[in-house]
Amino acid sequence: MDQDCILMSHGAGGLKTYQLIKEIFHKHFANPILAQELDASLFPSAPGRWAMTTDSFVVKPLFFPGGDIGKLSVCGTVNDLAVSGAKPLYLTSSFIMEEGFPLIDLEKIVASMAHTAREAGIQIVAGDTKVVEKGSGDGIFITTTGLGLVPGEIDYSPQHMRPGDKVIISGPLGQHGLTIMAARGSLPVSTSLVSDCACLHELLNPLHSPEIRCMRDPTRGGLATTLNELALQSGLGFLLEEGAIPRDPAVEGLADLLGLDSLYLANEGKAVVIASPQAAPRVLAQLRNHPLGRQASLIGEVTGETPGQVLLQTDLGTKRVLRMPAGELLPRIC
Amino acid sequence: MDQDCILMSHGAGGLKTYQLIKEIFHKHFANPILAQELDASLFPSAPGRWAMTTDSFVVKPLFFPGGDIGKLSVCGTVNDLAVSGAKPLYLTSSFIMEEGFPLIDLEKIVASMAHTAREAGIQIVAGDTKVVEKGSGDGIFITTTGLGLVPGEIDYSPQHMRPGDKVIISGPLGQHGLTIMAARGSLPVSTSLVSDCACLHELLNPLHSPEIRCMRDPTRGGLATTLNELALQSGLGFLLEEGAIPRDPAVEGLADLLGLDSLYLANEGKAVVIASPQAAPRVLAQLRNHPLGRQASLIGEVTGETPGQVLLQTDLGTKRVLRMPAGELLPRIC
Repeated sequence: MDQDCILMSHGAGGLKTYQLIKEIFHKHFANPILAQELDASLFPSAPGRWAMTTDSFVVKPLFFPGGDIGKLSVCGTVNDLAVSGAKPLYLTSSFIMEEGFPLIDLEKIVASMAHTAREAGIQIVAGDTKVVEKGSGDGIFITTTGLGLVPGEIDYSPQHMRPGDKVIISGPLGQHGLTIMAARGSLPVSTSLVSDCACLHELLNPLHSPEIRCMRDPTRGGLATTLNELALQSGLGFLLEEGAIPRDPAVEGLADLLGLDSLYLANEGKAVVIASPQAAPRVLAQLRNHPLGRQASLIGEVTGETPGQVLLQTDLGTKRVLRMPAGELLPRIC
Repeated sequence: MDQDCILMSHGAGGLKTYQLIKEIFHKHFANPILAQELDASLFPSAPGRWAMTTDSFVVKPLFFPGGDIGKLSVCGTVNDLAVSGAKPLYLTSSFIMEEGFPLIDLEKIVASMAHTAREAGIQIVAGDTKVVEKGSGDGIFITTTGLGLVPGEIDYSPQHMRPGDKVIISGPLGQHGLTIMAARGSLPVSTSLVSDCACLHELLNPLHSPEIRCMRDPTRGGLATTLNELALQSGLGFLLEEGAIPRDPAVEGLADLLGLDSLYLANEGKAVVIASPQAAPRVLAQLRNHPLGRQASLIGEVTGETPGQVLLQTDLGTKRVLRMPAGELLPRIC
């Protein structure tokens, strides 16, 4: 086997593992906490509450317009912390690699993670590598776990939503999901789509206040699925206005062609914010004041009249139920 | 495809994902933090320092005498916290499953994780599930991340070791590695081997003090590899006495037959403790006082004379260098 590839011995815990960790992971992730060389990394406590979240990433292909699995694995976890009201601080990353995976691709991915984490002001404090035989994996899978601090009295549990609360989305939908689909080369057309993959904490940090009821990032399953989950969890419903939803023409053109609905397509750089009616104008203005929120829009409201349901008021004046998708969505988009 | 198996739609983020999380994961892992239904889980801060660690588990087979991938994924991460001086508190778990994986096996594994976590007094606070196509994975991979609190002035960095410090091992070596090998059915003999897979924090908690210089759990690569790493990190060496190393006759008989050295075989329920000469007798007595440490032994000491090297004084009076293993050890034992 090519020596420039991942070998089974890279995952066996011996010299090869030690070298791989030193020469690729520590080289790019270097920070004082990682330098402790303990089986666990130590850092000081701080007042407040901690938020912890984990995500595995199996996106295919590994590199796509606007990002790669490394960037995605940092942004995805940072965003789960951010929409929970936390300032992201620490990240762990664990790699499951398939025998034969090119080291040059591994280093590109690790460098991308390091770059994204640095930009986000988050430290990668611990990691692990495992190797599986050729045919027992698919290149590389990454699992990241994030830890952040939640200030003051922030609590974005869905139970805090009230009828009349406003639904705000930070920008147009579906860019990530459709970009991945296009990057697989399975589409009959060439596109200029770019994933929206981005860390959202700097966009969302200025918003945090008790007048925000709830925040989510509509990833797998898109906005429709996220709102269905919130509806189930809160026992309330949503009424959205189709005409108010911001659209990316490149997404909509291709989605129409393919018979897809951008409300069900995955996003990796968008947030949905449920805010009190009083706070909504401020939230909208703050979002639009940041490059990642320029196209933020108020798209609907929480209602007590259709518990557990998400309704869309169409441009034609009719109402359509946006159901929780039951079947197979686009697989492996994150 | 069989409806009692993992489908691609279980990982797509829609209704199937939601049901799987409710009906298997939340059912077994239920706790107040998980019930928050946020994208990240919130828990209060506490004084002291936090320790954080992550590990992926790809063990094959998934079920083996003494444990399964679920139990292993909890014990492995708990032990990395414990040998860092931390009291384990919170765990996240992320699952990458192959299309077609039997739901009955998933539930067995999740129940085993829940049981192990409950016994260890640790809460599983967040999780994620992803599904990859048949042939792109191998049944199930689990990544756990642990968070614990480190009391007082504990610091087990290898830099704290001093020449003359004593090396203590909590029991005989190689049980996990050889059990996995036997469970693969690749051995010409039947064995009664059982993995030592266990959570060590209750064994190790009473030891924590500044007179402990360092602790590790000798997993992949066994004791020889762990000590080589400590030697490299500290710039010191080790001199072990072969006759003092506790042995499991079942392991040694089979290892001899196969030409394997139990010092290089993986353990999942053992700790190596480096203690000051003054503290060593107390440490030994405390370890032997716990069911998991009955066969604890003082097996050698730290030396300044052979920096970076691990030497074994054999029963014949000669000295043998225990090198860092360069090639392929037994793959996928954890």
